[in-house]
Amino acid sequence: MASGLKINEDLARERQKCTFNVTELTHLLDNGEKVTKQKKHFEKTLFSIKELQDEVPEIYLSHKERYENAVRKACILQKVRRDYEKEHEILSSRNLFHAEYGVIKDVSPFFLHRGMFVPTIMGQGTPEQQAEWLPKAQAMEIIGTYAQTELGHGTFIRGLETTATYDAKTEEFILNSPHITSYKWWPGGLGTTVNHCIVVAQLYIDGKNHGIHPFIVQIRDLETHNPLPGIQVGEIGPKLGFQTANNGFLGFKNFRIPRMNMLMKNAQVLKDGTFVKGMNEKLTYGTMVLVRVNIVSDAAYHTAMAATIAVRYAAVRHQSQLKANQPEAQILDYLTQQHKLFIAIATSHAFENLYRLLWQQYLKVVEDLGKGKQDHLPELHAVSCCLKATASRDSAIMAEQCRLACGGHGFMTASNLPIIYGFCTAAITYEGEHTVLLLQTARYLMKAWTSALEGKVLAPSVAYLVDWLKADKQRWNNTPEAMVRGFQHVAAGKIKDAFDAIQKHVKAGKDFEDAWNLASVQLIKASEAHSRAILCDAYWRETVRSSATVSSSLAAVLNHLLQLYLVYWTLETVGDLLIYSNIAKEDIAALKEKYEELLALIRPNAVGLVDAFDISDEVLQSALGSYDGRVYERLMEEAMKSPLNKEPVNQSFHKYMKPFIKAAKL
Amino acid sequence: MASGLKINEDLARERQKCTFNVTELTHLLDNGEKVTKQKKHFEKTLFSIKELQDEVPEIYLSHKERYENAVRKACILQKVRRDYEKEHEILSSRNLFHAEYGVIKDVSPFFLHRGMFVPTIMGQGTPEQQAEWLPKAQAMEIIGTYAQTELGHGTFIRGLETTATYDAKTEEFILNSPHITSYKWWPGGLGTTVNHCIVVAQLYIDGKNHGIHPFIVQIRDLETHNPLPGIQVGEIGPKLGFQTANNGFLGFKNFRIPRMNMLMKNAQVLKDGTFVKGMNEKLTYGTMVLVRVNIVSDAAYHTAMAATIAVRYAAVRHQSQLKANQPEAQILDYLTQQHKLFIAIATSHAFENLYRLLWQQYLKVVEDLGKGKQDHLPELHAVSCCLKATASRDSAIMAEQCRLACGGHGFMTASNLPIIYGFCTAAITYEGEHTVLLLQTARYLMKAWTSALEGKVLAPSVAYLVDWLKADKQRWNNTPEAMVRGFQHVAAGKIKDAFDAIQKHVKAGKDFEDAWNLASVQLIKASEAHSRAILCDAYWRETVRSSATVSSSLAAVLNHLLQLYLVYWTLETVGDLLIYSNIAKEDIAALKEKYEELLALIRPNAVGLVDAFDISDEVLQSALGSYDGRVYERLMEEAMKSPLNKEPVNQSFHKYMKPFIKAAKL
Repeated sequence: MASGLKINEDLARERQKCTFNVTELTHLLDNGEKVTKQKKHFEKTLFSIKELQDEVPEIYLSHKERYENAVRKACILQKVRRDYEKEHEILSSRNLFHAEYGVIKDVSPFFLHRGMFVPTIMGQGTPEQQAEWLPKAQAMEIIGTYAQTELGHGTFIRGLETTATYDAKTEEFILNSPHITSYKWWPGGLGTTVNHCIVVAQLYIDGKNHGIHPFIVQIRDLETHNPLPGIQVGEIGPKLGFQTANNGFLGFKNFRIPRMNMLMKNAQVLKDGTFVKGMNEKLTYGTMVLVRVNIVSDAAYHTAMAATIAVRYAAVRHQSQLKANQPEAQILDYLTQQHKLFIAIATSHAFENLYRLLWQQYLKVVEDLGKGKQDHLPELHAVSCCLKATASRDSAIMAEQCRLACGGHGFMTASNLPIIYGFCTAAITYEGEHTVLLLQTARYLMKAWTSALEGKVLAPSVAYLVDWLKADKQRWNNTPEAMVRGFQHVAAGKIKDAFDAIQKHVKAGKDFEDAWNLASVQLIKASEAHSRAILCDAYWRETVRSSATVSSSLAAVLNHLLQLYLVYWTLETVGDLLIYSNIAKEDIAALKEKYEELLALIRPNAVGLVDAFDISDEVLQSALGSYDGRVYERLMEEAMKSPLNKEPVNQSFHKYMKPFIKAAKL
Repeated sequence: MASGLKINEDLARERQKCTFNVTELTHLLDNGEKVTKQKKHFEKTLFSIKELQDEVPEIYLSHKERYENAVRKACILQKVRRDYEKEHEILSSRNLFHAEYGVIKDVSPFFLHRGMFVPTIMGQGTPEQQAEWLPKAQAMEIIGTYAQTELGHGTFIRGLETTATYDAKTEEFILNSPHITSYKWWPGGLGTTVNHCIVVAQLYIDGKNHGIHPFIVQIRDLETHNPLPGIQVGEIGPKLGFQTANNGFLGFKNFRIPRMNMLMKNAQVLKDGTFVKGMNEKLTYGTMVLVRVNIVSDAAYHTAMAATIAVRYAAVRHQSQLKANQPEAQILDYLTQQHKLFIAIATSHAFENLYRLLWQQYLKVVEDLGKGKQDHLPELHAVSCCLKATASRDSAIMAEQCRLACGGHGFMTASNLPIIYGFCTAAITYEGEHTVLLLQTARYLMKAWTSALEGKVLAPSVAYLVDWLKADKQRWNNTPEAMVRGFQHVAAGKIKDAFDAIQKHVKAGKDFEDAWNLASVQLIKASEAHSRAILCDAYWRETVRSSATVSSSLAAVLNHLLQLYLVYWTLETVGDLLIYSNIAKEDIAALKEKYEELLALIRPNAVGLVDAFDISDEVLQSALGSYDGRVYERLMEEAMKSPLNKEPVNQSFHKYMKPFIKAAKL
């Protein structure tokens, strides 16, 4: 990757100090050497295409130019990826997807075509409907998105306002947006890009509401791209991130679509207007779960990007003296810097390990569903809700921590950290708002607690409640196992507290719903504690498992990271542990020392650990984080690309400043 | 403000419920009715100028166009403000400054002219130098900035690399940037705007280094604006925020300036090259302290902006049902939403109260310095370091919490919350990096602890250490006073722990510097706890004081906010309190209930409280937060301004998508 480039001397020295085989860890993280090789091969194919390189960096373009440039590149990218997929058996589509960051830098306007439009047809269309639309969609003869959220409704999808009224005479649905709040708002690509979309709307037949259903709707002429009559469509404007995602709005005025455009794998509307209820509506849960499990993987990747940039920069940057009359120190040698960065490395590992376990569970549930068994779906749903919430929140915090650890330079777009933060923080809200998801899990936890009190056998993710009720509280001992148990005790204690709070309000005469609302801050905290317990448990178990499969030098490093993660969160939540576990003040003092020891153990491997994430410079897009460590040269090179630096004097001097200064003199 | 507009019904209802006089609170926050009136008068003057309104919103322009538009508006703004200042006695220059948000939206490229260039000439120039440059600078015949930070050096200013070498033959200094890392990097306005700057450089005379000193340097021709020979200047490119600040870089190659361009109020270089050391170098501390105290005020204002937007939106937005078959609830009625937003309101009040106390202390120190007394400067320096760090960090957290509480719409630039976050988070780094400042305060705290152990009398801000040593630990009782004392106990305990950690390492044979580094995570935490103790103490005392001057209905509300703040932070840091104070588990349970009661008490006044911040729509710039609550209409109006929505089909369809789709069919 870095052949021919002069590597910054500090980085070279760091790489020599590393105690483990970086490539071995890369293969472990990628899930096998073959996957790593394919990733590199695809990236080489993609990044060698000259037309994908921008003459002027996107960030200097106007909003409109930036969109146009993104469409240009997205078309090339789709073609390259399609050809590649024809010629190769794809080992990890996530790896291929990550390479797109190196092209689009931000989000492709075609993103939801592959991400939601095609999967929805696959998941909710009948075989006939699939035969009709899938080939065209997969060949991208038609390009679509998924339009659910409205200006006035996000979370509460039962409240969506767009109507699809069946007209049996013509066998058509008539789509309408009755209020301004009914406009679809947010779907990626909807603004000016797609010609089709899945529209989620309230179905009305003969004045009777039958709930929300998905419809496939053509919104633009395929030849001219003009919006069809009855369609009002446009883009919603700039955002904190996702600048090229082309998020759009969409309104309908008596817009007619054929009856067969309702996706009818579940519920159906017959010709005469008879409504046939779906049999297995829970199946649609499966897609939601999948999306949330993938967000855990995204969180791992984005955290790895941020950590890579900040750790390499901290190795290159020298500032202040650790001792008088010594040269300025690498900032990576400051304990406060290690405190900020090493937890980010460990967090990425924790999410990656969690993702693997969730993925296994997801496959199991899908297999079960195929056999008509739905037993494990509620648990997986509850687990994926709170872990999506926690992983997205943690990754946003870690990305910001890494950015701030780069000082002023982290504030520059050229660091890429602001853009990474945009990705991370968006995930806190999309695909299930943070607080709403935590409360969904809390509902499951309240039921689980009731079952535990009734002495029932619980699902694995909440089985710790039974242990806790048995008061099986072994003495705290600062081992990974004991710390994991401690987090479970905290979760159990908070679940009990929230449950009791609800009961107290109910006993005082409140409705259950009011009691639930009054206890909701505590319910959130219970759900968060439950997430942390699952996350720590999963990370611990997976590390024990994978450590047995790798060299002893790598196993040692994996173990350092795991311990760092557990000790960090023990110290962060020590108040909870003091209340709900039997940790003692001496344990805490010992853990503070242990934490400092772990930082020292990880220090020589810090650069090796981020190198092992194996994120190429093209994907990382960071002047601060490149493999060669040419931080200052790259910052200057990036600045020189600014159109303002292409001319000695900007016209605004003559137009505005000079007259202003002259007037001041009078 | 809102006359003639139709007010959203929910907001109107909220305003009727309010239990206190909103105007009374506005006057209290503004420091008097006259100040409020002047604010409104200036805003009316400013916002009625048609040329200041953008045809196309800035966010749609290219980087270069955006800059040019900012210069255009900044010139008009400067003229308006100058004229206004000539005609009026300015009661609060901060209020006038806030109005600029309504014009520039972001940061003016002239920002540091007034903010740093002029003050530095005033603070560090001799009377002759002031006579030479101040009139021109104040009339803006010359426009300047302050160039200290370099590509390779921020925090550690002793390490700056730019050199100013005295040439006694010509009585000139020769400026040079010996390495790429020596380039000045970051100064606002430096890129393509200013023609002068203060350059901080290492002074060399006859090969001997005399440390860093400020020089006034003309960098561009006043007539042509061309960079002068020997000057390389340009802009550094886009950032997370501050897009129109025109931050720049600057390099020198044998650039000569006259001897009298060294600002010589302190140190001097005589004609023959004799170096005369400055007598009162601590005076320059004063400016740093002032800037940091002002950042606390900025934090109050930015938090108020974010809270105003999120609270009004939460009153307008309905989502989900609190109870089955009821209409969807205002999201402000969800306890989890109150938990996110009310602490933001209280935080703004806490910072505002703290700012007033710090400002009084600052004036006292300046008065003392005038009399040659420097006794209170070290304490104020220590206090301003950690409180700048804490206030900027807290305001960034609160701004993000408010943004996330607005769901997807908070992610839109039209909410203005992303831009407010940019302001808040930038302040964490500029004017003293967060961690560095906390460690500066920690140094003061370690000295204070030593003095306490020696039985000496301590400065007021650390006097609690003496009480703590006396083991004067009254029983915790959930009153404001006891909570404040609890925060002081935590701070004292953490200061002691950090001190002991250093001692332990020293006893184990480490150098003091190594021991300091090893204990630095604990030192940071001690410094943070000290900040929280001061902040809570100041907020409590000021509220008690100001409550006596206002109506009883307002006093009650101020007291609710104060209590909310104290209880919130007690619960957030309960682990520390369990270790370092004598809080009991029953107290914690009672405080959780108290917290929920306080949310309920504040709920009817939430909209009134943010109305009382009295931030006009023009300044707030938020589709979600406007006074009239026309949230959805404004979101749509803003979106319609996008150039992509001015044409039915974007050219990228014909240029890229159509050929791509056709190729797919083949």
